[in-house]
Amino acid sequence: MRGAVLHAPGDVRLDTRDDPRIEQPTDAIIKLAATCVCGSDLWPYRGIEIVDGPAPMGHEYVGVVEEIGPEVTSIKAGQFVIGSFFASDNTCEICQAGYQSRCIHAQLMGAIGTQAEYARIPLADGTLVATPEQPDERFIPSLLAASDVLGTGWFAAVAADVQPGKTVAVVGDGAVGLLGALAARELGAERIIAFSRHEDRQQLAREFGATDIVTERGNDGVAIVKEMTGGYGAHSVIEAVGTQESMMQAIRSTRPGGHVGYVGVSHDVTLPGDELFFSGVHLHGGPAPVRRFLPDLTDRILSGAIDPGKVFDLTLPLDQVAEGYRAMDERRAIKALLTL
Amino acid sequence: MRGAVLHAPGDVRLDTRDDPRIEQPTDAIIKLAATCVCGSDLWPYRGIEIVDGPAPMGHEYVGVVEEIGPEVTSIKAGQFVIGSFFASDNTCEICQAGYQSRCIHAQLMGAIGTQAEYARIPLADGTLVATPEQPDERFIPSLLAASDVLGTGWFAAVAADVQPGKTVAVVGDGAVGLLGALAARELGAERIIAFSRHEDRQQLAREFGATDIVTERGNDGVAIVKEMTGGYGAHSVIEAVGTQESMMQAIRSTRPGGHVGYVGVSHDVTLPGDELFFSGVHLHGGPAPVRRFLPDLTDRILSGAIDPGKVFDLTLPLDQVAEGYRAMDERRAIKALLTL
Repeated sequence: MRGAVLHAPGDVRLDTRDDPRIEQPTDAIIKLAATCVCGSDLWPYRGIEIVDGPAPMGHEYVGVVEEIGPEVTSIKAGQFVIGSFFASDNTCEICQAGYQSRCIHAQLMGAIGTQAEYARIPLADGTLVATPEQPDERFIPSLLAASDVLGTGWFAAVAADVQPGKTVAVVGDGAVGLLGALAARELGAERIIAFSRHEDRQQLAREFGATDIVTERGNDGVAIVKEMTGGYGAHSVIEAVGTQESMMQAIRSTRPGGHVGYVGVSHDVTLPGDELFFSGVHLHGGPAPVRRFLPDLTDRILSGAIDPGKVFDLTLPLDQVAEGYRAMDERRAIKALLTL
Repeated sequence: MRGAVLHAPGDVRLDTRDDPRIEQPTDAIIKLAATCVCGSDLWPYRGIEIVDGPAPMGHEYVGVVEEIGPEVTSIKAGQFVIGSFFASDNTCEICQAGYQSRCIHAQLMGAIGTQAEYARIPLADGTLVATPEQPDERFIPSLLAASDVLGTGWFAAVAADVQPGKTVAVVGDGAVGLLGALAARELGAERIIAFSRHEDRQQLAREFGATDIVTERGNDGVAIVKEMTGGYGAHSVIEAVGTQESMMQAIRSTRPGGHVGYVGVSHDVTLPGDELFFSGVHLHGGPAPVRRFLPDLTDRILSGAIDPGKVFDLTLPLDQVAEGYRAMDERRAIKALLTL
């Protein structure tokens, strides 16, 4: 089959890879309907995360089940399925508490590589969620978004304890931050303040529910959020970047007793204990347990309530995967969808 | 009046201080019924926190109202009252959300100094909670404990989301940690693991509700908690020390998706962002909003349900305050009560 492989920083190619096969009795093989490039794929692409040798790429996926292992019971060949970037058994105590991304049997889909024609899905019963029927073509981008960026933005909003009538700030205007704004709207937030200095992203943030845009960053941005909230700070802040500046901006934008939900993969961040202590905020985040939200998110998409697929502002055939990476790296695109 | 004053590290004396008087129309003056020495008083006493010139000491207090300012409406002269180490208006948005220690008008009682015969209490209506009647003498130690160490341990347990039937670990065997164990028991925890290597504290931890004692510290202690919890870690962990080691021990003892409630005043702590991210824990804490819990804690004490006053294993008259500090500094006492 054909699949994207990163050979060196900046060098991603569509190679011929071995067809996946059932390795464990709990595996399934899916034929991808669509896949995409993630902001987190840019870390190794940019050489900031070091990859040892050619690495298959991609961890977002929707598709049709081709084959199942002998122990798979709830998923059937022919079903249209969605899964998250962590395979999980969905039965251990951690999964049952809603933290499937930290399942005791968790497997990272990025190591398997879903920017490809086919993919092996471990722990298929726990990992995959099937739609009631074959979804209409127009829903594919949104269902694909649910696989990671929507699920991650949604988790960030839940981790930030977004409540009806409250004020939410969003640090980060990538796909996850934008969909965090959408999640905040769906969860009933009254005021949604998006930090963004890019006009195209500001517009999408507003479409998704942002009521205010702040172009300032760092402590200047914090000061504006404080001013907008009677000096208190936001009730809930979504952090979707993962840098020292973005984390401190998120913590400082939050009122005492408020909540920070952080999902930007942490890079070179150290949090000062004394400032965190006296901030009095709640801090929760990490790799999003997207699986927890997939049934609900699938329903919301198929009912037409939400249209997260709008984050894809570039659509390319899989064989132009390299251009997808380039466009995102150069910030010409928010997120690139790859068709098959 | 007489009041404790710290002149230099290790040099605390009972001096003659000016009698407090009403300074703001919202003040009250109380005559102390009892006061005590806090673990946090040891930071300046040991010279770790630098104090500029002679400083009045103490922030825990119970007593009888002597006089009220003209704008005080709910507190009356003659009432027996309890308050926390932060004076707070109890009306601002932050107070109403239960974070009175971060009230927009918060004032630190430590700057006023309650190891004294009398004390001025700012924002008396918001700060003080009156008991229904003059309490029996035997309740005084427990009511005094509510002023800080019980309220702080209780907040730690609430911040750690202690739930019925769950497993809680407690890092720190000072008065706050011990009362965190008591709070965990009252909140219905099934298993309470106390980290302690001091026999007297282990015994008190068991009296307060600890079901298991772990004498190992750091990663050795973490490994034992993991082993005791099926490899997962505790659901809730109370941190009541405030050092780098204790914070990491708390975070690492918590299962993914679990909760750390940290109340040890943070000293030279930096949290590694990547480890925190992948831990998937909830982190919440800071200076405890004791005022939130005072009405409930007072009821529990006066009904005989809890006896947190047991943390006082040394009782001295106020004029022996210096010996109280020495005994706690040398760990001869868990907590010293000062009578008047």
